[in-house]
Amino acid sequence: MTEYAPLDFRSDTVTRPDETMRLAMAGAEVADDVLDHDPTMRLLEERVAELLGVEAALWVPSGSMGNLIALTLHLRPGDRFLAPRGAHVLDSELGTAAWIAGGMPHPLECDAGPGQVSAEAVRAAAGAAGPYYTLRTALLCLENTHNSAGGAVTQPDRHALLVSAAKETGLRVHLDGARLWNAAVALGLPPAALAVGVDTVQVCLSKGLGAPVGSVVAGSAAFATEARRVRKMLGGGVRQGGVLAAAGLVALGRVDDLAVDHANARALARGLTELGWQVDEPETNIVLASVPDLEVTLTGLRHLGVFAGPMAGRVRFVLHRDVGGDDVAEALRRIGSVS
Amino acid sequence: MTEYAPLDFRSDTVTRPDETMRLAMAGAEVADDVLDHDPTMRLLEERVAELLGVEAALWVPSGSMGNLIALTLHLRPGDRFLAPRGAHVLDSELGTAAWIAGGMPHPLECDAGPGQVSAEAVRAAAGAAGPYYTLRTALLCLENTHNSAGGAVTQPDRHALLVSAAKETGLRVHLDGARLWNAAVALGLPPAALAVGVDTVQVCLSKGLGAPVGSVVAGSAAFATEARRVRKMLGGGVRQGGVLAAAGLVALGRVDDLAVDHANARALARGLTELGWQVDEPETNIVLASVPDLEVTLTGLRHLGVFAGPMAGRVRFVLHRDVGGDDVAEALRRIGSVS
Amino acid sequence: MTEYAPLDFRSDTVTRPDETMRLAMAGAEVADDVLDHDPTMRLLEERVAELLGVEAALWVPSGSMGNLIALTLHLRPGDRFLAPRGAHVLDSELGTAAWIAGGMPHPLECDAGPGQVSAEAVRAAAGAAGPYYTLRTALLCLENTHNSAGGAVTQPDRHALLVSAAKETGLRVHLDGARLWNAAVALGLPPAALAVGVDTVQVCLSKGLGAPVGSVVAGSAAFATEARRVRKMLGGGVRQGGVLAAAGLVALGRVDDLAVDHANARALARGLTELGWQVDEPETNIVLASVPDLEVTLTGLRHLGVFAGPMAGRVRFVLHRDVGGDDVAEALRRIGSVS
Amino acid sequence: MTEYAPLDFRSDTVTRPDETMRLAMAGAEVADDVLDHDPTMRLLEERVAELLGVEAALWVPSGSMGNLIALTLHLRPGDRFLAPRGAHVLDSELGTAAWIAGGMPHPLECDAGPGQVSAEAVRAAAGAAGPYYTLRTALLCLENTHNSAGGAVTQPDRHALLVSAAKETGLRVHLDGARLWNAAVALGLPPAALAVGVDTVQVCLSKGLGAPVGSVVAGSAAFATEARRVRKMLGGGVRQGGVLAAAGLVALGRVDDLAVDHANARALARGLTELGWQVDEPETNIVLASVPDLEVTLTGLRHLGVFAGPMAGRVRFVLHRDVGGDDVAEALRRIGSVS
Repeated sequence: MTEYAPLDFRSDTVTRPDETMRLAMAGAEVADDVLDHDPTMRLLEERVAELLGVEAALWVPSGSMGNLIALTLHLRPGDRFLAPRGAHVLDSELGTAAWIAGGMPHPLECDAGPGQVSAEAVRAAAGAAGPYYTLRTALLCLENTHNSAGGAVTQPDRHALLVSAAKETGLRVHLDGARLWNAAVALGLPPAALAVGVDTVQVCLSKGLGAPVGSVVAGSAAFATEARRVRKMLGGGVRQGGVLAAAGLVALGRVDDLAVDHANARALARGLTELGWQVDEPETNIVLASVPDLEVTLTGLRHLGVFAGPMAGRVRFVLHRDVGGDDVAEALRRIGSVS
Repeated sequence: MTEYAPLDFRSDTVTRPDETMRLAMAGAEVADDVLDHDPTMRLLEERVAELLGVEAALWVPSGSMGNLIALTLHLRPGDRFLAPRGAHVLDSELGTAAWIAGGMPHPLECDAGPGQVSAEAVRAAAGAAGPYYTLRTALLCLENTHNSAGGAVTQPDRHALLVSAAKETGLRVHLDGARLWNAAVALGLPPAALAVGVDTVQVCLSKGLGAPVGSVVAGSAAFATEARRVRKMLGGGVRQGGVLAAAGLVALGRVDDLAVDHANARALARGLTELGWQVDEPETNIVLASVPDLEVTLTGLRHLGVFAGPMAGRVRFVLHRDVGGDDVAEALRRIGSVS
Repeated sequence: MTEYAPLDFRSDTVTRPDETMRLAMAGAEVADDVLDHDPTMRLLEERVAELLGVEAALWVPSGSMGNLIALTLHLRPGDRFLAPRGAHVLDSELGTAAWIAGGMPHPLECDAGPGQVSAEAVRAAAGAAGPYYTLRTALLCLENTHNSAGGAVTQPDRHALLVSAAKETGLRVHLDGARLWNAAVALGLPPAALAVGVDTVQVCLSKGLGAPVGSVVAGSAAFATEARRVRKMLGGGVRQGGVLAAAGLVALGRVDDLAVDHANARALARGLTELGWQVDEPETNIVLASVPDLEVTLTGLRHLGVFAGPMAGRVRFVLHRDVGGDDVAEALRRIGSVS
Repeated sequence: MTEYAPLDFRSDTVTRPDETMRLAMAGAEVADDVLDHDPTMRLLEERVAELLGVEAALWVPSGSMGNLIALTLHLRPGDRFLAPRGAHVLDSELGTAAWIAGGMPHPLECDAGPGQVSAEAVRAAAGAAGPYYTLRTALLCLENTHNSAGGAVTQPDRHALLVSAAKETGLRVHLDGARLWNAAVALGLPPAALAVGVDTVQVCLSKGLGAPVGSVVAGSAAFATEARRVRKMLGGGVRQGGVLAAAGLVALGRVDDLAVDHANARALARGLTELGWQVDEPETNIVLASVPDLEVTLTGLRHLGVFAGPMAGRVRFVLHRDVGGDDVAEALRRIGSVS
């Protein structure tokens, strides 16, 4: 039996820090961030706030913690929040939006394309304020790109309409931008253009950008102050975090590289289509394929050393900086050899 | 301007205790239920457990508390529960399933008729057990009759299929039977036939049955023991509750009277249809009507002394023992007078 | 073996409604309190607010729920609250101050007599505001009379000093006044004199006053509005609660009767002392006795048909309207017969 | 005005990673720990489990998260936990033991020396199981060394007695061993000797051992599995955490160096005493001094470039690898110069 070198398309979270990033970590200036604010973390936070067009930002160990902090601060008992079906905060954060943030989720059907909800749906769900014994809809959670919808991009005009609908109906807006960088690159826009009007936004450094650990949650200065407190509660306050922030700063310099992942995603989709697969045209770095039997396909791929994952009943391939164009070609070759 | 005598179709919760019930309350044997178990409460709890075919039952001040106690005991952080879109536990209990019980709600589309989900939908949502970092689906919440779907009845065969699907996929089942009595009467079955296989069930005494205060949550003896503890936590442990349980015992003798409410509901639906309204055929005691402008219609009705309420964008009329056949005729007369 | 008629000194919660109270319940004017505000509940709430000198009040099924609602509204994650060692909210509400209200309890030593803390202790514990990663002390919970300290009364001057200390250090004040009526009667003061300056206060109708079910939580009008919402969340919103409020209104007319319980408590204490027991001089309706072996004594008493309970390692006798002076004499006779 | 080089005695959390540690981080073998278990994290976790004599361990971003995970898994609503007054879980984790873990804290007076409770106190507080409406005491939290008591060491025989008392009364035991290494070095014992019999234990790598970020929580294999899930919920699941675990592995090699900190602590205490300060004899690396006016003293020290912190009303100096013997001498010289 042939021994295949593994090609890992399971997630862009598998990216490993390269030499440059490791050297930056090794040389990072640090201090006790709980007591003094670590200088490298501070630099990273300022840089991200600037990129997102908001006042202030806070490093967090994971995107899940960033979202949880935002929801905890936005929601009170008796509050309801809206999010598109399949959103990460609904399906992939182990229910902490409910258990810890105390909010009641209300999934919105994606009535405006994969991962996309319409402003009308937001308005209808927000509704008018009801009597005292009814839930108060308090928050709209957006996700751009939308992971479970295959890295779907929310266009800036739709984003603006959604934010308007939220504001008009008295909702705050949190944007889960774990892959906002991909959306920005796909659209050729600065990230801030996709965060216009939101109250809070979370972005990941450890996915396509390749940092080993870390995300950033951002918003007003008042939010960042309170967020720092909640981060400490959740156990996310760290000491000399500058070693990680240094990797994050390197990562921020690599946003434009994501275009390569997007090109590779298109190449993979094209190749799979030519091999007879039923594949959506990728908008960013995620390729979703519909197959007759998900488990059979994933196992077959694994035997070929091609690692993909399940996503809402389909095969998900995620392109990232540790799988290049050659790897895509090789994966297609292997898959073709058994078709 | 004519002064109309009010006809209250807003909810069957408005029913007032009659003389018989008040006398029963006044004469109730009582004791400190927290310390000793009040004898009348004990009698009521035994009676309800028997009617529902379960081991044990516990009086609670409201259906919301009954549901909350059950969810609190069924769910742990990281657990997800399934419920049909529009279910009371999702939309009408102020999010305590999330905040207090700590569970992550997952609404199921009603793919099998109004308020009805299919066993396939349950199986698909329950899914296989995922890796450690994913939600565990732990509970299926059913609601019979389904309030926001217009008092829709779940047939015993569908109920059985849903319970089977839940059990096969490792889910517990809680039944919100706030109006289970109505379902039983509509089907001509004993209530126990509609609670077969569930782990826990909640029934209300203060809706169509007319008791002033109180519901009962029921299940295994072990559940009832733990439920008593959680009831105390939530502040629902009362002292000489026998005065309320006595009303509940009278209420239990009036289940068959609900057939009158159902007949009145059909008469109202027929009359409204004849007046050109677009009305669903009622299955029990709730009539839903679609109107062009909900607020305009509710206000217009109010001017006629006909009080109805909004329910998911439609007009809801609820029939109950305090509005009889004459009241229905009178309401139709008034509505007809302005059509 | 002699068969003794039971004399129940376990708690004043065992009081049963008498004929007058039952007739009031039977005749109560009622309405759906969730939808419309039941008129008898409204009357009771207004009466209690007036008696306590606050803007508004809300009926609740139990004192535990009243305290829990207040704590839920006063506390946010990261907040700490102060309460005297042995307070009901610390030891006897199953930890809901933590689990549901989310607050971190900080027991204060009773440095100023049984159940009494000094204003200095409050100031020291409140402390100055610390850095962002420290608890914020937000609330002082008082309890008058203090149950586990044997019904100890907080004098109005001490109360005023404690409230001042709290206000100066930025704390809110909640008063658990489950037996505030007893304190007022013992001091010959109106209840309002003992609630001066507090933000919220809870009083029980179902202890010495003899109502079967119910307490009231009170404070500003804004508080009562939010409290009504939280009550609904916890499952304490009831429908025709007027039947219970009517009993509460009768109970309010019986505050002065508590003086009889206090006299009986003194008689019991005196009698026990004469029999060689080590007994504290009671301030209100609770008698605490120190005994060599608690379990042996409680069992011995039980054999005599004298039912008492344990309280912090001592025997607790609670006097109430269902055990009169004759019952005290009889209890002493029985105890004397075996001494 | 003289410009003093800063000497930082505020906490051992301020230690910065040195060159060796940074190189280890830069060279760490890594993988996506959420998906695959990062190999360096796995190595660290195995090493720590071995050192502590338990089955399994889990890296966490902070000691607070380690404690919170343990408490979350040990406690259920209605549970109470015991901890010595001043414990970190009581005073320095922002109340998450209550808010998130849902447990009711019960501080034990330190009746057996600073930071030390007696086995009798544990037995008395655990008590017998009460009726259903009472708190269940479920957990004993120990802390060794005890931070707010000045790094006080719990001797192995006392530890054994406490664990026995807990087990006999049905309590689980969690050990907050943020500075367990210091206790072990002070006693000349392996760390496992101080964790005998506990259910769970947390140790920090980022305090005296000098790692930039990270702690480890440990216990049975089943605990570690569930802990991994709760870590993900709280947002502490990281991707290529091996970069931090590598620093942790270096840190584990430096346990014996803590003896230097202890010697420096004794030297500082001696020196301060000679200068007329009132200082406790340090057991490990923490020196507590009682001063007439805390704020005045801290400010005065700050003007001398000597940074200390407040701890329960006293001045706390913490010795660590970034302040050596020369620094202690220099600090004493500066303080002496103004005495």
